[in-house]
Amino acid sequence: MKKTTYHLSLAAALMAANPAFGLTAAPPSTGPADKAASDVIAYQITAELTAEVGHRQAGTQAEQRGRDWALKKLAKLGFANVREEKFMMPTWVRGAETAVITAPQKMELSIAALGNSGSTGAAALTGEIVYFQTFDDLVAAKDDQVKGKIIFIDHNMTATQDGSSYSYFGRARFQGPNVAAKKGALAILVRSAGTADHDHPHTGNTNFEAGVTPIPAAAVSNLDADKFVALYVKIRRPIAASLTLTPKNLGQQPSGNVIAQVTGSNSALPPVVIACHLDSWDLATGAFDDAAGCGIITAAASYIKNHGTPLRTIRILWAGAEEVGVWGGKDYAVQHAATPHALAMESDFGADRVWRVDFTLPEGAKPLQDRITRRLALLGIAPGRDKATGGADVGPIIAAQGLGVIDLQQDGSRYFEIHHNARDTIALIDKKQLQQNVVAWTIVLEELSNYAGELRPEIKP
Amino acid sequence: MKKTTYHLSLAAALMAANPAFGLTAAPPSTGPADKAASDVIAYQITAELTAEVGHRQAGTQAEQRGRDWALKKLAKLGFANVREEKFMMPTWVRGAETAVITAPQKMELSIAALGNSGSTGAAALTGEIVYFQTFDDLVAAKDDQVKGKIIFIDHNMTATQDGSSYSYFGRARFQGPNVAAKKGALAILVRSAGTADHDHPHTGNTNFEAGVTPIPAAAVSNLDADKFVALYVKIRRPIAASLTLTPKNLGQQPSGNVIAQVTGSNSALPPVVIACHLDSWDLATGAFDDAAGCGIITAAASYIKNHGTPLRTIRILWAGAEEVGVWGGKDYAVQHAATPHALAMESDFGADRVWRVDFTLPEGAKPLQDRITRRLALLGIAPGRDKATGGADVGPIIAAQGLGVIDLQQDGSRYFEIHHNARDTIALIDKKQLQQNVVAWTIVLEELSNYAGELRPEIKP
Repeated sequence: MKKTTYHLSLAAALMAANPAFGLTAAPPSTGPADKAASDVIAYQITAELTAEVGHRQAGTQAEQRGRDWALKKLAKLGFANVREEKFMMPTWVRGAETAVITAPQKMELSIAALGNSGSTGAAALTGEIVYFQTFDDLVAAKDDQVKGKIIFIDHNMTATQDGSSYSYFGRARFQGPNVAAKKGALAILVRSAGTADHDHPHTGNTNFEAGVTPIPAAAVSNLDADKFVALYVKIRRPIAASLTLTPKNLGQQPSGNVIAQVTGSNSALPPVVIACHLDSWDLATGAFDDAAGCGIITAAASYIKNHGTPLRTIRILWAGAEEVGVWGGKDYAVQHAATPHALAMESDFGADRVWRVDFTLPEGAKPLQDRITRRLALLGIAPGRDKATGGADVGPIIAAQGLGVIDLQQDGSRYFEIHHNARDTIALIDKKQLQQNVVAWTIVLEELSNYAGELRPEIKP
Repeated sequence: MKKTTYHLSLAAALMAANPAFGLTAAPPSTGPADKAASDVIAYQITAELTAEVGHRQAGTQAEQRGRDWALKKLAKLGFANVREEKFMMPTWVRGAETAVITAPQKMELSIAALGNSGSTGAAALTGEIVYFQTFDDLVAAKDDQVKGKIIFIDHNMTATQDGSSYSYFGRARFQGPNVAAKKGALAILVRSAGTADHDHPHTGNTNFEAGVTPIPAAAVSNLDADKFVALYVKIRRPIAASLTLTPKNLGQQPSGNVIAQVTGSNSALPPVVIACHLDSWDLATGAFDDAAGCGIITAAASYIKNHGTPLRTIRILWAGAEEVGVWGGKDYAVQHAATPHALAMESDFGADRVWRVDFTLPEGAKPLQDRITRRLALLGIAPGRDKATGGADVGPIIAAQGLGVIDLQQDGSRYFEIHHNARDTIALIDKKQLQQNVVAWTIVLEELSNYAGELRPEIKP
């Protein structure tokens, strides 16, 4: 591997250390981005939030403790206008969960209920497992192949740097339970939407259409899914299983966003909003998803703040209840509909290095885009070919106001080994890669917050 | 890493071995793709071509030996209408190449002249090296910073799965020498457009505008570029160097394409053309670039051929002279302008696994696209979000005829550690990943060659 995969390159370090050096025509890199190169704030936020609060499942007391922690932390870091904006959202919580193959031989499977799963009740549900190789095969199946059965959906998700395989292979989890329920299945097990062969099932939300009664739905760890499929191959006859899942719906519960800002000097300029999400799944402490994102954006904003007052306000949004339906992002767009925004960004794809940058900006902002591109290139980040689209939590405000967007795309090569399972802890965070994120974010925020031009692609200057 | 990263998954193997198995709705996978799962043809072609012919630089006798070998091999494999189509193209060959830092201390740099580089003459050129951190910095420099100097362009290219960083960081090599020459530079050295820290410089073509006299231009290995930059940081004053590059232009020389086909039963259907390139750079035997591509497409076509006569003809193009200006691809489009084609594909990004598939097809071919997508998903390949654009050699025929395109995107994570340098040999080929390519190609060719519908996106049915 190359020297500079996630470090600042020697050349960039040189420029940072000695702005007057050399004959290069590039503007000397001084200021907040230099400080970000030795950042510890992002790691501290990630470590403290995951250690002191633990998991932060949406709608629970744990998430409230996360908000309380965030309010204190953001105030302590010196941000302005630190506040909580509460909202109510439907809350589902995990209960007991066991799955056992009972014949032809006994085999326990590691499972995790999917968000919105129905309950089997305390008494185990028993039935025969029917195997489908892919989500599409389930869709194409006749009702009588499914009715009264426990469905198993297999698939072959592999790792991608851009994370693009999740949307395709993830359909087994996102939509599989709804399809199975409509065809009359008793329950459904899906191979985890993950790319590593470990014994930790990957949870995550699933969605049932209005009017469809949720059936018990769980993910099987990839290791146990392999064992199950091997058994199925060997015996080639129906497999009897016993399944217990006792999740509960708690009805409407409070969640909330935590908001803070770096106040710009020109109040006529609409703010840039930068987002992460504070909630996590309950199986781990959510270091990658998404404590690190909160650490990254907050660290970067703090370097801007500490360097002096920027022209434009940077608003920080630690969104609530992202995992279970983007409730915080939706609430933010409604609550702040009357405030024009300029541009939105989000960090919600783990803690590994930024490898690509995408833009959605007006033509008039081309010089700004070029300047950002040149500065990011020193970190090994190349411009992509796609339009920037933002993350889940800023999606509603982008759609409502037609905002500019910049996406600092993180390397997803190992994200789906960690995402939504018990391994999502501080132990797997790579500090060097986390720092590279903070430097990249600081560069972008420095440029954006000192740019007085139009950032919304559809507004004519 | 997951079990199925580049193997057929257990489940796919199961389906292949026992089509009647299970209750899945997927069509049983029988036929040519099953044979491809244990392919040895692609590896044999790669191994034999690189061992028996060696490098195959365009316009040289070595490339002619490659064509002779290809004609025999394709005939022996039983393809129809095996032939050579010659053309003439301007030919440049490497001479001596040394670069030495002479003061403040002596340091030899591993370099490789870039294709189209000028010559220093036999006597070394001496001068002062001026450092530019990026290609853009050179573009922005004033002429008097460049005039009479030896230019060094640094950059920080990092590995990407989709290879997208090459186009941005590669500008130092593609365009740097032309920019430097126009500003009056004596010569230019660029950090290799590569992502590994080894001592092997990456060659490749550079281009001078008409009317610009080529200056001596070479790439420095990344390891030596690191050493050079470290020295520059330390001493902070001009660095004297001595450079010898004695490449030659041989004028117009013969190159050629090698063409073969699997003849379809319905001659009214326009053919699908599948391409690789036979030429390579001269620093290695070109196993990844692009003997493996020729192995992959030819192996896949042979499984179709041996399974019976398809509806549609598959034309195989082993293009000549790709590296130095896509002369073979251009000649093919001219020579075959009168033959309507349906769709084009190319394999020219190494030998590692296919991770994504992109399509450019008409709306009416959606069922075909969905069928291909479903079959490829069993190999861990997900559909991408981009339009398929094809490779260099099929670019001219796609542009001329508005063809359909399918891109089986290969994993480029390690490609630029190997590409255009001495390490591009059979030793680094991963046989399992090579086989996965052949299976993917066989699936796509099986579907395309038995599809009678329109494949060109702009032709209304």
